Amino acid sequence: MSIEPASQLDAADPLGPFRSRFVAADDPSVVAYLDGNSLGRPLAVTGERLAGFVAGAWGRRLIRSWDEAWMAEPVTVGDRLAEIALGAAAGQVIVADSTTVLLYKLIRAAVAARPGRDELVIDRANFPTDRFIVDGVAAERGLTVRYLTPPPAAGVRPDDVAAVIGERTALVVLSHVAYRSGFLADMAAITRAAHAAGALVLWDLCHSAGALPIELDAGDVDLAAGCTYKYLNGGPGSPAFGYVAIRLQEELRQPIWGWMGAGDPFAMGPEYEPAKGMRKFISGTPPVLAMQPLKDMLELIAEAGLAAVRRKSVALTERAIALADERLAPLGAVLASPRDAAERGSHVTVDHPRFAEVTAAVWKRGVIPDFRPPDGIRIGLSPLSTSFAELDRGIEAIAEELTFLTS
Amino acid sequence: MSIEPASQLDAADPLGPFRSRFVAADDPSVVAYLDGNSLGRPLAVTGERLAGFVAGAWGRRLIRSWDEAWMAEPVTVGDRLAEIALGAAAGQVIVADSTTVLLYKLIRAAVAARPGRDELVIDRANFPTDRFIVDGVAAERGLTVRYLTPPPAAGVRPDDVAAVIGERTALVVLSHVAYRSGFLADMAAITRAAHAAGALVLWDLCHSAGALPIELDAGDVDLAAGCTYKYLNGGPGSPAFGYVAIRLQEELRQPIWGWMGAGDPFAMGPEYEPAKGMRKFISGTPPVLAMQPLKDMLELIAEAGLAAVRRKSVALTERAIALADERLAPLGAVLASPRDAAERGSHVTVDHPRFAEVTAAVWKRGVIPDFRPPDGIRIGLSPLSTSFAELDRGIEAIAEELTFLTS
Repeated sequence: MSIEPASQLDAADPLGPFRSRFVAADDPSVVAYLDGNSLGRPLAVTGERLAGFVAGAWGRRLIRSWDEAWMAEPVTVGDRLAEIALGAAAGQVIVADSTTVLLYKLIRAAVAARPGRDELVIDRANFPTDRFIVDGVAAERGLTVRYLTPPPAAGVRPDDVAAVIGERTALVVLSHVAYRSGFLADMAAITRAAHAAGALVLWDLCHSAGALPIELDAGDVDLAAGCTYKYLNGGPGSPAFGYVAIRLQEELRQPIWGWMGAGDPFAMGPEYEPAKGMRKFISGTPPVLAMQPLKDMLELIAEAGLAAVRRKSVALTERAIALADERLAPLGAVLASPRDAAERGSHVTVDHPRFAEVTAAVWKRGVIPDFRPPDGIRIGLSPLSTSFAELDRGIEAIAEELTFLTS
Repeated sequence: MSIEPASQLDAADPLGPFRSRFVAADDPSVVAYLDGNSLGRPLAVTGERLAGFVAGAWGRRLIRSWDEAWMAEPVTVGDRLAEIALGAAAGQVIVADSTTVLLYKLIRAAVAARPGRDELVIDRANFPTDRFIVDGVAAERGLTVRYLTPPPAAGVRPDDVAAVIGERTALVVLSHVAYRSGFLADMAAITRAAHAAGALVLWDLCHSAGALPIELDAGDVDLAAGCTYKYLNGGPGSPAFGYVAIRLQEELRQPIWGWMGAGDPFAMGPEYEPAKGMRKFISGTPPVLAMQPLKDMLELIAEAGLAAVRRKSVALTERAIALADERLAPLGAVLASPRDAAERGSHVTVDHPRFAEVTAAVWKRGVIPDFRPPDGIRIGLSPLSTSFAELDRGIEAIAEELTFLTS
């Protein structure tokens, strides 16, 4: 296979102009940013957006802003996120907490809603927080965890799930895109398999939201959660989002009873009465300042269109694999991601025993992929902020450092 | 009692110049901001701080900032907060989550550490989130809640606590300064009373942190939590802080097992192994962007000195009471806060059946106190950003609107 010059691909890329909408897109200190799946770059408007927020809504409207906008934002920003990126109708998504805390609340809620069932299903390749929360909830509620062990460079398939679930399964917790391999699970088919056994499913969307079209409603998904600091560019530690299908909202009850999840937060009444609908999954005061950057990125994604984002994502990951085959495989590196684009999210992982050292070396050169144990370089390709030339520069630097170390 | 002109007090106020360090301190759109105990005003440097963060640590250092600074910030910012505002040695405070979520984690941890004890103690005048979380934990763990009912315009005293606790008490949950009355509890004496019965105490510091000196270590406090958006001016929904006395850290274990509370977050190992020390109380990815404004306010408090802050706070609340006696009491308003400054935090509440309407009317005039049900106007006096003249303008507007409504 011959590899087209990056300059041609960039020139023909309909999304190419979006790259200049990000901070320091062509700053010499960042030669290649290949970790937009860990922390998305800020938009150029984000600094201004925050300064304007400080001067206006916070600094001059002050507490009046709670009435004028902020009380609504966990659901209004959630609704916009649902519409643009999640394939979900309004009233099913909130922006709140961290992914970890939302996972805890939703898993506890799901378990309580399936009282006759004493098993949770998760895969060993799932992100640590997901596994740890499942283990923690299982420990405190006296449940058993059944672990799936997907093969390397792949992930969980519908048959894997069907093989372990049954009448004892309360909940299946899976990642839509696996954080290490990048495997893209078949959300709708797995959800159907779980439902056939009477189980609920919770999807972790951290590595898919904003990078590819998601169809929560069409897939009949029960629960989902994810972060907003990867492909949604919300900033370090920006709040998470949670989805609960409207058909489950009345039944489910989460354990962290805070004033902002109460029916009338300012009634300050004697007893907790959960709010109707999605607001009952809120606990504390909404992280309003921290959800501002996300708002602009959602509009940028809407402007680009998620189908176009996915097309570019596929082109980038295809190229990353082609370049890895050409430049890294001869040095002993092994692809740890699916070769079939239909089974792949927006990142590619390549393994080599010397990659911990290589990562440290390329970081010093302004080439920034991520390292994932035991020996993977993870190349995250955020479609709106990453050029084909940037990807080439990154792989080239990795190849050079690996050559240096192994020669 | 004769009331000194505000202009004289402002001229003589050693903290007077600090007011100009806040956004829109003399903007005509904000005639009197009397709700700094609900949402502190932003510092003038905050917009710049955030824009610089976007352009630098986030936008150019990108993921490298996690290694360079951000992983440490929940504890380094916590340590600085501990030193400046909480009277606590390093290694006992984290900045994370919301107050509600931290209360849940710490209360669950405390209850698990006192397995033979099946009662929780809280007061009915405590903030809704505190009461709701206590009720929720009691419901899920099969515990009984004993409620104290302090008299109006006051709060919980050591004898009240001593009267209800005993060998069944696992934990006492109280606010240091009551959110409505402003009553300042005797933290050290109540903590001693609880310890005498073998119980733990958790102090909610939301309405005291940053407004008056707190001595967590000297008071032998077990647990504390609070928000950073009131007198710590962190911005709407800024992260909370939690304190666990070092002597309890090994024993206590919190229920939300996230990757950032694990011993080595990037080992991504098979099982959750809690971090040593205070980090184990972290769950998800730290809200780094949202904790930036707080850092500057902590340095401003350090510059002013918390003893001086408290002196001005007392002068402001004394004046608020004197003005309320002179202008509002003749119209039927009743003081709902302690008259003794030693038993009062930095806000004053006054009740009148027409105060819901009065609040709406004065907000339109740019005079912004808070309303608390059933009929209280709460006058919050953030010492570094509030002038005596501003307080006068606020009370005068309230008096005018109340006169209009009742005449």
